[in-house]
Amino acid sequence: MNRQSFLDLDAADVLAPFRSEFQLPVGVIYLCGNSLGAMPRCAPEIARRTMDEWAKDLVKSWNTADWFHLPQRLGRLVAGLIGAAEDEVVVTDATGINLFKVLAAALAMRPDRNVILMEGSNFPTDNYTAQGLIALLGNRHRIRFAEHDGIMAAIDKDVAVVALTEGHYKTGRLHDMRAITARAHACGALAVWDLCHSAGILPVDLNGCHADFAVGCTYKYLNGGPGSPAFIFAARRHHGVALQPLTGWYGHGSPFAFERDYRPAPGIEQMQSGTPPILSLAVAEAGIGITARAPMAAIRGKSRRMGDLFIQLVDEFCDEFDFRLASPRESAQRGSQVSLTHQHGYPIMRALISRGVIGDFRAPDILRFGFAPLYLCYVDIFDAAQALRDIMQTDAWRLPEFNSSLAVT
Amino acid sequence: MNRQSFLDLDAADVLAPFRSEFQLPVGVIYLCGNSLGAMPRCAPEIARRTMDEWAKDLVKSWNTADWFHLPQRLGRLVAGLIGAAEDEVVVTDATGINLFKVLAAALAMRPDRNVILMEGSNFPTDNYTAQGLIALLGNRHRIRFAEHDGIMAAIDKDVAVVALTEGHYKTGRLHDMRAITARAHACGALAVWDLCHSAGILPVDLNGCHADFAVGCTYKYLNGGPGSPAFIFAARRHHGVALQPLTGWYGHGSPFAFERDYRPAPGIEQMQSGTPPILSLAVAEAGIGITARAPMAAIRGKSRRMGDLFIQLVDEFCDEFDFRLASPRESAQRGSQVSLTHQHGYPIMRALISRGVIGDFRAPDILRFGFAPLYLCYVDIFDAAQALRDIMQTDAWRLPEFNSSLAVT
Repeated sequence: MNRQSFLDLDAADVLAPFRSEFQLPVGVIYLCGNSLGAMPRCAPEIARRTMDEWAKDLVKSWNTADWFHLPQRLGRLVAGLIGAAEDEVVVTDATGINLFKVLAAALAMRPDRNVILMEGSNFPTDNYTAQGLIALLGNRHRIRFAEHDGIMAAIDKDVAVVALTEGHYKTGRLHDMRAITARAHACGALAVWDLCHSAGILPVDLNGCHADFAVGCTYKYLNGGPGSPAFIFAARRHHGVALQPLTGWYGHGSPFAFERDYRPAPGIEQMQSGTPPILSLAVAEAGIGITARAPMAAIRGKSRRMGDLFIQLVDEFCDEFDFRLASPRESAQRGSQVSLTHQHGYPIMRALISRGVIGDFRAPDILRFGFAPLYLCYVDIFDAAQALRDIMQTDAWRLPEFNSSLAVT
Repeated sequence: MNRQSFLDLDAADVLAPFRSEFQLPVGVIYLCGNSLGAMPRCAPEIARRTMDEWAKDLVKSWNTADWFHLPQRLGRLVAGLIGAAEDEVVVTDATGINLFKVLAAALAMRPDRNVILMEGSNFPTDNYTAQGLIALLGNRHRIRFAEHDGIMAAIDKDVAVVALTEGHYKTGRLHDMRAITARAHACGALAVWDLCHSAGILPVDLNGCHADFAVGCTYKYLNGGPGSPAFIFAARRHHGVALQPLTGWYGHGSPFAFERDYRPAPGIEQMQSGTPPILSLAVAEAGIGITARAPMAAIRGKSRRMGDLFIQLVDEFCDEFDFRLASPRESAQRGSQVSLTHQHGYPIMRALISRGVIGDFRAPDILRFGFAPLYLCYVDIFDAAQALRDIMQTDAWRLPEFNSSLAVT
């Protein structure tokens, strides 16, 4: 493969116009959109406008700028990306907080069961959330951990909730949401999906799969900004039935009546708790909005192809350097990242970053490369692989500056 | 009282220089800082810089801009305002979420008791939080509601937690934190304080009062911005003992080890859950920082005096118009707001707002006027009272435009 063939792919790319909607540093190939997405060019203007609303209209902006309904407005945008109806999603709070809400609601709907099925090796904050909930409920429940190929067999009549992250944070490997949800339902369990590594990058069909609940962040492939609030989905059939326990005025049936006692809002609004962080929420609309406008089939097609090409290039360029592929080779089974393992993964990644190729490292030996089709070019993939080859061929990663103590986030 | 005497007070005001640190609209007298504080002039620059960090350094900003430790950095600033040590406070999540954390932790520390004592008439989201927690725990606990003068007598050996908002959102009336906390402890209960109407406007001495836990928002008198994240205080003696149940990676003992199982951080960090909204958090540092630099005794002195003067002016100017004082007349018993009741309170407040005097209305009949000494002049108080007199004398509040259906936040 030569560089020109990548330039040719870019010339024919229907997503190419989206690149100009993002601001990226010159000389950087950003392969970390699976951790924090790039900044939309329109985002600073939204930040500026929101600050202006605060300065000029002060408290009135809750009405005049309709800050109050930002969670629903963003929820409608996200809904279109995850196969949900517009009244089934709100954006508020952090992913883990939202997971706590739906796990608690789901467990209450299956009072005769005591198992939460999870994938222990996936990003552990979901485990922590379930563990905190279980301890709070008096250790009447337990987590059954199963790994990818063992999930289906691990779902039985004891399982109250199957709670999985669709894409694996280390490998990008995808679960079969449709099959697992069907199996969960066949066993009488509920299905909760964490879409942190799916929303905005894969076609997700929550209602087509009859999913019960879902959560996910907006700062990865939705480009909402650092720590931007997360979304929460509850299937309409559960509205008014599934009640989340972090009850606050924002989820009250009459939030401005200031009644003494809680009375849940009938719809998705009940999934809200307190006042959301307006500035972070307002700015998140930029990236979510761009993604909502982009054709998902093209996103997924380019994402798969970029991953395939990167794998081929690493095979071709770095055959002699002991990298192993930690992600599925078959792109249909993969989210939008390719992970490699290498015993010297940490200094290698630091050397790459020093050349402007930004991926990340996860202990003990994983190099992660994420592909965000809205702002990456095919030729970036070529150049990144070439940089990797060069670092290996020249032993650049052995430099002391790349081998100092760990300082990774 | 004449206007000149108010101008004289302004000329002698040691807090006068702080006014220029805030951006306020021309022609507006903003008496709603008890709902949403005004914007610090330096806040847009922080927003701009944070957006820049996102755009330029992308995911690296978690280290290079130290986004990761924003909750602790802001916590240290807040600590100085509430009588806490620097390692006892973090800023993260919403007030209600944080209240859920400390209530759950506190109940677990008093397993043989089943009562949460609360003031039912205060801002009800705290009631909702407790009600959600109680339902989640299987209705083994209950709330005992008591009103202001009945609080002390209502604390007995059944009470696990006394959870009160120090200042009343409708009247501004203050609880005696020291006496109530002492009484709670004497009965073996724990004391949780909601400081939404206290932080940044009153001297608060959590450790001097031996308070156990506290929470509070940063968007009122701390001027953090709309929906800016809340703080959470846990007394050091409870660190490692009081464990909050919304467990997430941010509160893990080794957040970057990505261990499968939760292991709490030993200190205040355990009170964190998931990734916080960085933009809202970064901007909040502006207002919190200004308040942390201001002399608290002067803030409290000016706040009390403004309230006293406003009450005197209303007495003098509006004696014939059937206003009643809903706040304590004695400023020592009052936070930084004065509330009046009037049967036509809603159109009267709208008429005031149309003249640039921004207070707010709370059903059924309360007009609230908040006094933020860092950006208000004494003469604003005079002008606001004069506007109120004029509206009453001319019957301006009877105009149809002020009497249409409610649209209040």
